[in-house]
Amino acid sequence: MQPRKAAIIGGGVIGGGWLARLIENGIACSVFDPDPEAARKLGAVLEGAERAYAGLTDAPRPRKAAWSLAGSVAEAAAGADLIVEAVPERLDVKRAVYAEIETVNAEGVIASSTSGIMPSDLQAEMAHPGRLIVAHPFNPVYLLPLVELVAGKATEPSWIDWAKGFYPGIGMHPLHCRVEIEGFLSDRLQEALWREALWLLHDEVATAEELDAAIAYGPGLRWAQMGTMQTFHLAGGEAGMRGMLAMFGPCLKWPWTKLMDVPDLTDAFVDRVGDQCEDQAAGLGPRDLERIRDDNLVAIMQALKANGWGAGKTLAGYEAHLRDRASEEARSDPVAPIQTIAGAGPDGSAHDGMPLTDERCVAVFAEATDALTDLIGAGADYVASGRCYVTTETDIRRMGAGRALEPITVDTQVLDVGANTVRLLHRMHDRDGQALAIGEYKLVHVSLESKSASAPGAEVSARLAEIAARHVGLSGADGTGRGIGA
Amino acid sequence: MQPRKAAIIGGGVIGGGWLARLIENGIACSVFDPDPEAARKLGAVLEGAERAYAGLTDAPRPRKAAWSLAGSVAEAAAGADLIVEAVPERLDVKRAVYAEIETVNAEGVIASSTSGIMPSDLQAEMAHPGRLIVAHPFNPVYLLPLVELVAGKATEPSWIDWAKGFYPGIGMHPLHCRVEIEGFLSDRLQEALWREALWLLHDEVATAEELDAAIAYGPGLRWAQMGTMQTFHLAGGEAGMRGMLAMFGPCLKWPWTKLMDVPDLTDAFVDRVGDQCEDQAAGLGPRDLERIRDDNLVAIMQALKANGWGAGKTLAGYEAHLRDRASEEARSDPVAPIQTIAGAGPDGSAHDGMPLTDERCVAVFAEATDALTDLIGAGADYVASGRCYVTTETDIRRMGAGRALEPITVDTQVLDVGANTVRLLHRMHDRDGQALAIGEYKLVHVSLESKSASAPGAEVSARLAEIAARHVGLSGADGTGRGIGA
Repeated sequence: MQPRKAAIIGGGVIGGGWLARLIENGIACSVFDPDPEAARKLGAVLEGAERAYAGLTDAPRPRKAAWSLAGSVAEAAAGADLIVEAVPERLDVKRAVYAEIETVNAEGVIASSTSGIMPSDLQAEMAHPGRLIVAHPFNPVYLLPLVELVAGKATEPSWIDWAKGFYPGIGMHPLHCRVEIEGFLSDRLQEALWREALWLLHDEVATAEELDAAIAYGPGLRWAQMGTMQTFHLAGGEAGMRGMLAMFGPCLKWPWTKLMDVPDLTDAFVDRVGDQCEDQAAGLGPRDLERIRDDNLVAIMQALKANGWGAGKTLAGYEAHLRDRASEEARSDPVAPIQTIAGAGPDGSAHDGMPLTDERCVAVFAEATDALTDLIGAGADYVASGRCYVTTETDIRRMGAGRALEPITVDTQVLDVGANTVRLLHRMHDRDGQALAIGEYKLVHVSLESKSASAPGAEVSARLAEIAARHVGLSGADGTGRGIGA
Repeated sequence: MQPRKAAIIGGGVIGGGWLARLIENGIACSVFDPDPEAARKLGAVLEGAERAYAGLTDAPRPRKAAWSLAGSVAEAAAGADLIVEAVPERLDVKRAVYAEIETVNAEGVIASSTSGIMPSDLQAEMAHPGRLIVAHPFNPVYLLPLVELVAGKATEPSWIDWAKGFYPGIGMHPLHCRVEIEGFLSDRLQEALWREALWLLHDEVATAEELDAAIAYGPGLRWAQMGTMQTFHLAGGEAGMRGMLAMFGPCLKWPWTKLMDVPDLTDAFVDRVGDQCEDQAAGLGPRDLERIRDDNLVAIMQALKANGWGAGKTLAGYEAHLRDRASEEARSDPVAPIQTIAGAGPDGSAHDGMPLTDERCVAVFAEATDALTDLIGAGADYVASGRCYVTTETDIRRMGAGRALEPITVDTQVLDVGANTVRLLHRMHDRDGQALAIGEYKLVHVSLESKSASAPGAEVSARLAEIAARHVGLSGADGTGRGIGA
């Protein structure tokens, strides 16, 4: 079940991130936050998220949903089938929010964003506690896939099942924390790292910048794809994790780390940590750093997608979900060209203000071709079975310069289908509908074993024929109903 | 100073990784390891590294250097100006190695790979202790940029300066750990995370796979680009790290994590950890996982390079270094085309056995164009100053299918130079020298402010004229000495 309306209680970094993810995925939201500056702060988060989504995926996303600020918790929660709670980490504050929700809403699932309070404690005073779950996200919520799901003692298990089904459809990777402990899993691990970093800074062994370099140029590059267990399983060489435990296990008992205590967070120490973090930023403000971080996250997830691994698999699954939905919608419209690229965003290597490059134009058309072959069932699984479509002729005409950082769309039309061939016409437009380029592509179906042209599988042929039949009446690149060189 | 000959003492995961990085960067090595299987194990590491380097960079790397196995520490160390020590983490073993080195070599720098032993302890019994440094790398050593530099009390500071200059030239990011502590910086942080993960596994709160998901789908994606300090500085919203300390600082004192103790590494517990790591691998062996890890690391670093950040900046600096060297070599050859792409490797999205795609062909030629514009001083800095070359005409002819996973090279020739234009001819070959494609590119120099053609800067013009003058006698695409459509 996809919620029709969501309520978000709390509009800080986490609530704002949820708002962005939900409306970018077409789910209308009502937000309550007592901060008089809430609208401005949320606007900044939404702007950053819009930019990030444009770069994250070319798959056709649903139309962005509307949102509004409500005057109270009750007003936001009324009629919502998903209520996201993202208020400060105080049990009394959270319980008061649930009490107010229950005055108007007895049905919707309540998903707490708490970083570590146990759901059994959260739900203890509720009239309908079975619908309370923890769905703990990570900043930036609109980009990072991880969401930890935790049930309390009184939670109905069916709500955890619902969450496992719902969150992947908005691009997330649910991790069910089966044992209810404070801090769940990820924050336990993060906190251990952070505590040690604070000690090293406290003892003047290293600055914030040096401590961050010790992660980002080494272990952090591994942790983006494999956690600490699999990483060390590999570092153990042929003996794996067993070898690693034999080699380094004893070090865990050495007095290397500050196990026994936590640095006192005196004002002077907090100032020192804060100052060093600002020094490290070297003049970049929070918005600059957020933009850089988001660009990097998008680029890393896309890199992992190309390799079919980890968070990249989550992204690929999300795109498949979006394309399936778009494909269903396309079937209901008998003649329109298929939108294969919707709002392709910033090219990582483009510089602000540069015109759309030929390379980018070719790359986007190649992606449109991939989207079309996916749609007819000739995607990665089909290629793995030893057959694929390869592009043998390309004819691109540029009509406008475009700008590298502006969103573009591509509509794709099937011009004609031969025994082993298909000709496609891609039309690229800017966001105002101005034509930027058209590309005619001739694809040949080949067998990877014989390395020669061959007929596609029956199902692929059928899907292609169905689309071609719908497109037969559309005009071609020259406006006459036939493509160039047909 | 680049070493002429390096010795590597110890041929395990770390020593093998050093060997790969050094020979891939043209530094000859002699390796000693008493393991009778050393040659086989090293061969496997070198094979993986060769594959990874082909994908890591298209910049022209030096010819791979030779290496050999030596019969003793002394035989390996004789005549070496860099001696890498990568033997097990036992002070007595390491000291015995240094003693044997000193019987034959009193001059070369000794760089210990120790993960945590203090260099003052390592060098305590040496006759020439001033030349011992710690240069602590991270697995896989041939890919991860981080190398921690630590001096002991007796270390000559000039060797740390040397190391800061040397390691970036082989693609690394040196981090000088200014205070000598056991475990240095990165392993302190890694160990804190690992200890907590072992506790959660020990207490049956989560499996190895769940603990890894809690990193790789969330915090790990942040740590690949920013460490824990800058990450939390951003998570604090507009209040930054100060806000974060106020919000979560108190949690550090809560009894969330297992501060006081370390799980006993009983045989039963070690078996459980090992079994879970093998379950998580789901049939993938160490070599499979290493290949996946390396592909992901390459893709992540390239993604960060496109964004000019972190480990991507290290990679860009390394490539600039390689191109500078190649450019110097090109100047000494008055007429040859310039090799702009050397051994371009696997395309992340290509499937084994698929022919070289048009998209890949276009992308490699685009990279060759970038390499040429870099060479004439019209690279990223120039573009940032508001001017750039844009490709306006492209004419590609494919002569051979090639294969996606085989290395290709591109030679680039300047056909002619106009007031605002330049025409390039790229020739792509497979590793046997067979022609795969030629591409003629017309580039126009534009001002990003006026959005129209403009003359390049004086220095760019001069470098271009110099290359054009050298290339005037070369034959064009049609073999006549003039390009098509000139």
